[in-house]
Amino acid sequence: MTVHFKPDPRSNTPLYRQLSGHLQSLIESGALRDGDRLPATRELAGQLGLNRTTISAAYELLETQGLVRGHVGRGSFVSARPALSAGLQWDRLLPREERAAQAGEGEISFASSKPSELLFPMDDFRATCRDVIESGEAQAILQLGSPSGYGPLRRYLLDRARIEGAARDSDEILITSGVQQAFDLIQRILLPNGQTVLIEDPVYPGLRSAFGRAGARLVGIPVGPDGMDLDALERALDKERPRLVLVTPNFQNPTGATLPLEARRTLVGMAARAGAIVVENDIYGELSYEGAALPTMKQVDEAGDVVLLRSFSKLAFPGLRVGWILAPRPLAARLIEAKQYSDIHTDQLAQAVVLRFAESGRLEAHRKRVRAAGAQRLRAALEACEEHLPPGARFTRPWGGMSLWVRLPEPLDAAELLPLAQREGVTYLPGRVFAVGRAEAGSLRISFAQLTPEKIRAGMARLGKVFARGLERAGERPEAGAEVVALV
Amino acid sequence: MTVHFKPDPRSNTPLYRQLSGHLQSLIESGALRDGDRLPATRELAGQLGLNRTTISAAYELLETQGLVRGHVGRGSFVSARPALSAGLQWDRLLPREERAAQAGEGEISFASSKPSELLFPMDDFRATCRDVIESGEAQAILQLGSPSGYGPLRRYLLDRARIEGAARDSDEILITSGVQQAFDLIQRILLPNGQTVLIEDPVYPGLRSAFGRAGARLVGIPVGPDGMDLDALERALDKERPRLVLVTPNFQNPTGATLPLEARRTLVGMAARAGAIVVENDIYGELSYEGAALPTMKQVDEAGDVVLLRSFSKLAFPGLRVGWILAPRPLAARLIEAKQYSDIHTDQLAQAVVLRFAESGRLEAHRKRVRAAGAQRLRAALEACEEHLPPGARFTRPWGGMSLWVRLPEPLDAAELLPLAQREGVTYLPGRVFAVGRAEAGSLRISFAQLTPEKIRAGMARLGKVFARGLERAGERPEAGAEVVALV
Repeated sequence: MTVHFKPDPRSNTPLYRQLSGHLQSLIESGALRDGDRLPATRELAGQLGLNRTTISAAYELLETQGLVRGHVGRGSFVSARPALSAGLQWDRLLPREERAAQAGEGEISFASSKPSELLFPMDDFRATCRDVIESGEAQAILQLGSPSGYGPLRRYLLDRARIEGAARDSDEILITSGVQQAFDLIQRILLPNGQTVLIEDPVYPGLRSAFGRAGARLVGIPVGPDGMDLDALERALDKERPRLVLVTPNFQNPTGATLPLEARRTLVGMAARAGAIVVENDIYGELSYEGAALPTMKQVDEAGDVVLLRSFSKLAFPGLRVGWILAPRPLAARLIEAKQYSDIHTDQLAQAVVLRFAESGRLEAHRKRVRAAGAQRLRAALEACEEHLPPGARFTRPWGGMSLWVRLPEPLDAAELLPLAQREGVTYLPGRVFAVGRAEAGSLRISFAQLTPEKIRAGMARLGKVFARGLERAGERPEAGAEVVALV
Repeated sequence: MTVHFKPDPRSNTPLYRQLSGHLQSLIESGALRDGDRLPATRELAGQLGLNRTTISAAYELLETQGLVRGHVGRGSFVSARPALSAGLQWDRLLPREERAAQAGEGEISFASSKPSELLFPMDDFRATCRDVIESGEAQAILQLGSPSGYGPLRRYLLDRARIEGAARDSDEILITSGVQQAFDLIQRILLPNGQTVLIEDPVYPGLRSAFGRAGARLVGIPVGPDGMDLDALERALDKERPRLVLVTPNFQNPTGATLPLEARRTLVGMAARAGAIVVENDIYGELSYEGAALPTMKQVDEAGDVVLLRSFSKLAFPGLRVGWILAPRPLAARLIEAKQYSDIHTDQLAQAVVLRFAESGRLEAHRKRVRAAGAQRLRAALEACEEHLPPGARFTRPWGGMSLWVRLPEPLDAAELLPLAQREGVTYLPGRVFAVGRAEAGSLRISFAQLTPEKIRAGMARLGKVFARGLERAGERPEAGAEVVALV
């Protein structure tokens, strides 16, 4: 294979990045296909008259991006797949997240945004499960059920939502197989023809893909330390005429940002005036470490039109796939239809276990333990960021949730630095994984909820060294236009 | 409200049916909307100069069709909803199935095609559940898992499929939230742009809607006593150029028909030559009451391209939503992506319980009991059909599954007779519920798997009387053109 590549000598972009960009465009255009073998570094260096380290650096960057995989002794191979939809990018990235999360012994992973299974109250779970299977309801639970969900669970959740002022008489509850399915059903019913949805940028890939893969048009609204940028939102509402706005107001993933109470009111009003539906993804609200979470947008919405999504999966047992949608009845009816077409109904054993866990008071006891542990972990993460991040780095200061957002000083690139970090036994997800529009090269997500304070401190210390070394080397980088030795 | 209706005096269609057809078109066009009150029978009779019994008969027929609901003392109301998709018809019909299945004390329902919960082995289920929750795997089961399914369950199913010769090395297994979700994922990946799918006609509404509601083009292939009509299939493969053919070869729902072994080979070959994918819905194969089920099409397919769908839900525990797809690896990879977007993964507690139930031998013991009970029920149903159906009625003679298919002699209409049957304390689903193209008016489904032999005999005796009375009255019907008193 011959690679035709002419470096631009006047560009500020280092040669290895010019080359990797060129190869990326060949992969994305389909000129290079899945499984194609790239030329050996020595061979390509000869062809192009470049230094061999430049070629290696370009390949390594592509590997970081999931576009190339290396096999020791066999060379480097394209690992792209023909694009099915915008969603495919997520698929390429998620396995990396899992690889990162299932890191080897001794590796500290800030990549995974799951509740810690070490905190799962296993004895309470077993007692709950025994209650359910010994009960007189067991036989009915094992028979086919209702598409809208297990009646006793729906009534429990609706009562709770009424008491806290989230549910009106005009609302209905639908149980879903986790909040991911709630996104999917909403997309089917409200965005069947590629309508526009405004989402936070950055946002976690599961949310972005649920809407993007089916052809909905995604427009990213920047998220600052106080959540969605309302000025940008107002402009987008006016210009894009979206069908819906999807907001994670509490401890947003990945930024950890929380939308202030007044901003919630403003946002709901702005969306209502623009005729856009607000979908409120409140899966992190339970993870408030300093007092209670703020009132939901559903609560402050005078008209009662906000669609609220929730689950207990960020507290415990995400392997039980139970979430729910609180929505005005006409929309709920359509979502229940779509649910029935999709999978008839959500698993009833899981629904009954979740209900019993909540009703018995075990959920509340567990919530307290998770909040106490989370508060410690959050504090450790914030202190370690202060201590170990390089001068010029910024990071969000959430008061709940699972992650915070770091912006490294220029010219650091979090994706480029990742292989170096992994070599030091620590991993994270670079900002590009969460980008809707253009990613900030220096951004990365630090997920702390699965790690003990000790691990958090040790991991951030390692990261601090990697970033410092990156800055040193960047300082040594020759002038633009000259060939460079890559940061690898 | 004024109804403008001019009867056609030369038509062979009785007046009440002309009127109900007119009202149905008003509902379908949106001229009459959900919740609209119909004129009182006396009032409309006066307006139109018709007999009041004619009006009542028309309203009753619309009620049977789910288009009108009556409230004692308040009148009759339109219960249509604006059509979202072809699927909506299913939605309107399924609640009726549930109503019918949840019939009052003493009512015998042939309408429901679920396994009998009275046969669920509850002690075995409880022991299985305890095994799972006490095991060392419990914590991992409660954590987020893999989109393709719980590893140990996948390996168990794949091994089993290899042993029976269904799985090749080129196949992969994906666990779904029941077979309904398998339909949904296949539709997303293989029919995203309204491509054509050939399905059996009649077929059960869950299958029809999973494909139809998303805009796939459904073409029905007639099902005879020996399953899909292969001549019709060959013509359709040639004419329609379908993307896939969906076949339920064992004890098809609703007909109970089984595709003979040689026909399976022929069908697979025909589809392969036409470049169509065969999707084999084998959810009833476990319910074989006379010897083992025939080899699947997946087994007889030399090329290994057939996609096989299965679950244990027809044996027991359909409230646990676990099914699976055995498919060639490239397709499986796409389906797993779609699964991840849809709901991340199937509930893991349910997967672990189903696995343990199978591995422990409890599933096999239960299968024997279900088959023994099913054989008795089937025999009772066949004998009762012989004894009680009117002369000229035909019915299928399945050797497994949950239902058989009856064709009443002309001019009987199973939908019209249903309210009469319900008044006699027995219910069923008329053929129109299962139609892809044009329904045969005389057809109906008799589902026997949930009923004891005594109930089956008693229910068929009641039905026999209703049908006989219907034939008597049809004989008394005045000449066409004259106003008639309806069969109600």
